[in-house]
Amino acid sequence: MNIVILGSGNVATLLGTCFLNAGYNISQVWSRNVQHAEALASLLRTQFTDDIHSIDQSADLYIIAVSDDAIEDLVAILGSFKGIVVHTSGSTSIEIFNNKFENYGVFYPFQTFSKGRDVDFKIIPILLEASNSKSLEILNVLANSISNRVRVCNSEQRKALHIAAVFACNFTNHLYTLAQKLLEDYQLDFDLLRPLISETAQKVQEFMPKEVQTGPAIRNDEKIINSHLKQLETHQTHLAVYKLLTEQIISESSKK
Amino acid sequence: MNIVILGSGNVATLLGTCFLNAGYNISQVWSRNVQHAEALASLLRTQFTDDIHSIDQSADLYIIAVSDDAIEDLVAILGSFKGIVVHTSGSTSIEIFNNKFENYGVFYPFQTFSKGRDVDFKIIPILLEASNSKSLEILNVLANSISNRVRVCNSEQRKALHIAAVFACNFTNHLYTLAQKLLEDYQLDFDLLRPLISETAQKVQEFMPKEVQTGPAIRNDEKIINSHLKQLETHQTHLAVYKLLTEQIISESSKK
Repeated sequence: MNIVILGSGNVATLLGTCFLNAGYNISQVWSRNVQHAEALASLLRTQFTDDIHSIDQSADLYIIAVSDDAIEDLVAILGSFKGIVVHTSGSTSIEIFNNKFENYGVFYPFQTFSKGRDVDFKIIPILLEASNSKSLEILNVLANSISNRVRVCNSEQRKALHIAAVFACNFTNHLYTLAQKLLEDYQLDFDLLRPLISETAQKVQEFMPKEVQTGPAIRNDEKIINSHLKQLETHQTHLAVYKLLTEQIISESSKK
Repeated sequence: MNIVILGSGNVATLLGTCFLNAGYNISQVWSRNVQHAEALASLLRTQFTDDIHSIDQSADLYIIAVSDDAIEDLVAILGSFKGIVVHTSGSTSIEIFNNKFENYGVFYPFQTFSKGRDVDFKIIPILLEASNSKSLEILNVLANSISNRVRVCNSEQRKALHIAAVFACNFTNHLYTLAQKLLEDYQLDFDLLRPLISETAQKVQEFMPKEVQTGPAIRNDEKIINSHLKQLETHQTHLAVYKLLTEQIISESSKK
């Protein structure tokens, strides 16, 4: 199977590397930025171009791994291919392809990618969607060769998963930041919190989060909650979050 | 060093076991509930009592590991000891001892303890406070024999750390729960989120959370944010959290 990678960022790099390691042939890398195209092509031992009209017409698969904003414009200027064209975006509908290609779909690796951190791809879920069953079958074989957690889902489900990730990843990291700031204000080191953060994430690898909720809110411990609210009086950002989430946890526990 | 443990819950059990493994002698376990006292005493190969007047008068250290609410009443009915008396509560001031004992303090292991999960005590921070420098020195030696992360701090700092833990642990787990519910509503499995949750916690073991914030809010990606808000219209609890935290992250990023 010949694969063309369109894009040169984190997702393009990681997927390209995974496919190469799994024995697939990357036939070309395209990027708007020719230096980036060259760098990734060199890593993937293949050719590169920054010219949309020079894209390999005979590849089996075209992977669009550019920023969400850029997908629509890129699709508009791409020629027509026989191979399957997929994008890799969680929050972009399959309808963005607008039946432009014969075979198209979505190949969404569901993880937070950061430069400089190695990720075990095998455990990263890959969510698939395709315009027809034959394309879905091909994507399924490909996905299963690099991941143990491949699921087929529609665009609405994929978007819900993306929102869930905003809660469990982006918002969670914001809570870590709020904790960090509070510690700084009391001359305490963030390092003190690290084992706890680790253990909290570790717990829900085995259990459902609802089963392992702890803290003053779930106990409805008014004495402690009020003393926390008092200490947070000068921290308005913290206070707003403390009040909202405490109310929600209390109201959740009273439903049981 | 002879140690008396007052209490029989998670903290009493974990600390007792740690001290025993580190070569200290647990001279007695007291608990209001005689069956619990007996069970823990058997584990710690020592004697037990449920009678407050039978507590060993000659121990070097008395560790109060009862629920926060029960500390004050227990202190009130305890006799006067020569040994150091400590409580193990994050949110209780050292002033609860009210100078009743000659030597007293706080020995707070900072972690979320759950029955049935093993915890590596060496990496768990222990926060110390004492009524005098001699007691502090003794507690310091003891704490360092079971943990690599021992800090001295005052009651206000300890309470701030406890609040920080509410954000980074209890509230974070609530966000996991919200994510879980959203997935359920779209017939998706929570298992899809687990690698991401792990990676999010893992990242801040090396970096500061402020440095690794990702997602639509930090990019101020209005298109994605609005499409999320629209999809959450029927999820009022999620919507309130999404709006508040997104606003805070955007406002944070604009300060840079």
